[in-house]
Amino acid sequence: MPQEKIRVAIVGYGNLGKGIELGLLKNPDMELKCIFTRRDPSSLKTSSNVPVVSIEDAENWKDKIDVAFLCGGSATDLSTQGPQFASMFNTVCSFDTHAKAYDYYKAMNEAATKAGKVAMTSIGWDPGLFSHMRLLISSILPDSKAYTFWGTGVSQGHSDAVRRIEGVKDARQYTVPVESAIERVRNGETPDFTTREKHTRVCYVVAEDGADKDRIEKEIKSMPNYFDEYDTTVHFISEEELKKNHSKMPHGGFVIHSGETGDGNKQIMEFSLKLDSNPEFTASVLIAFARANYKLQQKEDYGAKSIFEIPPYLLSNKSLDDLRKNCL
Amino acid sequence: MPQEKIRVAIVGYGNLGKGIELGLLKNPDMELKCIFTRRDPSSLKTSSNVPVVSIEDAENWKDKIDVAFLCGGSATDLSTQGPQFASMFNTVCSFDTHAKAYDYYKAMNEAATKAGKVAMTSIGWDPGLFSHMRLLISSILPDSKAYTFWGTGVSQGHSDAVRRIEGVKDARQYTVPVESAIERVRNGETPDFTTREKHTRVCYVVAEDGADKDRIEKEIKSMPNYFDEYDTTVHFISEEELKKNHSKMPHGGFVIHSGETGDGNKQIMEFSLKLDSNPEFTASVLIAFARANYKLQQKEDYGAKSIFEIPPYLLSNKSLDDLRKNCL
Repeated sequence: MPQEKIRVAIVGYGNLGKGIELGLLKNPDMELKCIFTRRDPSSLKTSSNVPVVSIEDAENWKDKIDVAFLCGGSATDLSTQGPQFASMFNTVCSFDTHAKAYDYYKAMNEAATKAGKVAMTSIGWDPGLFSHMRLLISSILPDSKAYTFWGTGVSQGHSDAVRRIEGVKDARQYTVPVESAIERVRNGETPDFTTREKHTRVCYVVAEDGADKDRIEKEIKSMPNYFDEYDTTVHFISEEELKKNHSKMPHGGFVIHSGETGDGNKQIMEFSLKLDSNPEFTASVLIAFARANYKLQQKEDYGAKSIFEIPPYLLSNKSLDDLRKNCL
Repeated sequence: MPQEKIRVAIVGYGNLGKGIELGLLKNPDMELKCIFTRRDPSSLKTSSNVPVVSIEDAENWKDKIDVAFLCGGSATDLSTQGPQFASMFNTVCSFDTHAKAYDYYKAMNEAATKAGKVAMTSIGWDPGLFSHMRLLISSILPDSKAYTFWGTGVSQGHSDAVRRIEGVKDARQYTVPVESAIERVRNGETPDFTTREKHTRVCYVVAEDGADKDRIEKEIKSMPNYFDEYDTTVHFISEEELKKNHSKMPHGGFVIHSGETGDGNKQIMEFSLKLDSNPEFTASVLIAFARANYKLQQKEDYGAKSIFEIPPYLLSNKSLDDLRKNCL
């Protein structure tokens, strides 16, 4: 293990960036050196008091940072910001658009390989830990049937979609797994669920004064891709109630595989998360993988890395031999 | 991926060996070449009809086997058999005596390194998958409190202990986790449990004719190390009932970590197994890791390996790039 601390930077100071800042307090082998932002640096109030630097000046920090946490959004920021940073810094990010994850990996791999950097991509919990679990479990139970349930949790994408409806002032959308469906899988059944049978959606909506609530509710429930395939419940509440009861970002989910071995012996494997704060948990995952990133740099094992490529011991601040001796 | 099948052998044809034999039917990238036994080979009835070979003749098979599954018991067989085999074959085993796992690893590492072989040790579910999960989770939530519960499942060691009591003809012992304790941890509490508060023990005992059942029950409940620290229930049943209702070997367990991030946000991570057949499941884990063993041989990455050192992609029969493309 290195005697010096791993010098890290946060790129983008939103919910995830703030989660990293807090998470680092529990990881004394790392030291936050600076926060990069696209905003006017003087406008940012941070809790750590490290230098806030314009993203334009990132290059000046190339030799002062061991790992940069890319905390921009997958939809817009990361696809351009990611490869730019991977050509200057070792990076960890939670790029989470499943359909584009492979193209992003390839772009990051090209940039990082050329620069002699390590870029860890799609390191969050789904994609991320859940991908790891699905691979692990399906390798052990090759003909098992795999189920992933998400929630109860806030979906930013769905909340945004509701907020775009005319007459909606603010909204929060929860994805809720159907408990009876989970129980069936846990009990060894292997049903084919429809979309509707696995999750329901619950919306808390603040309507503008005088808005037509019936129309809003109908528009939500019939919205293609987002809501039309689900049973959706809409609650109209006051702005105060939304702030008071729905300002946290809980989430979670379940990866459950039901398989058989031998003569019909059921074998059920499950991995689950129950999270009070989705961004703070995602940040905690990224921090553990930043440690692995640093160790790969020391081995000069450059390029982009998916979560599938990381042996567990690299995540720990203990030595491999200590783990073999004390953690089996 | 190799075009040829991975040629494997089973060493020891007990419950675990039979589980491997069955499990291989679901893994078409592997081919069972032979079964090694200490017994008279002609006395073994196998379901696969591969050659049954005396363990004395193992050396003659050195070049015909890519990975040997060591299926002997940890208590007596593996400590000598393991290093012997590791000097001739690439091996996977589930050595499961936690207190001796590191010494065993070192003996296996010495033998395997000298011979240019790969020896995977303590690859089962505890130690094994559960060790992997405890490491993964504690790396992500560094100040989380970790709980492992086992069961409901048959403990061979405890069943044997009951069978050694005078007047006991046969017995089966189940380890049962205390559901209310699990629920407290799942709900984010972090209690300090006594041994008694985490698990109970339930014994099904067939007494010999005329045996003193009160004495047997007292002897069981007061047995040091095995039962005295637990709440134990003893049921006397007939031999027929034991055969009918208690001949399976179910097991399972839970690794649950309860941690906090930021300003008191609870984050709960859980990995659980619910197994109809403990030996068949353990066999399935060993088979997946045999695939990783084979890939490490191809990289000439020799020596003993703990579960902490294996990146997940090595377990899969898909290529790494296929996983990056389709499994994130």
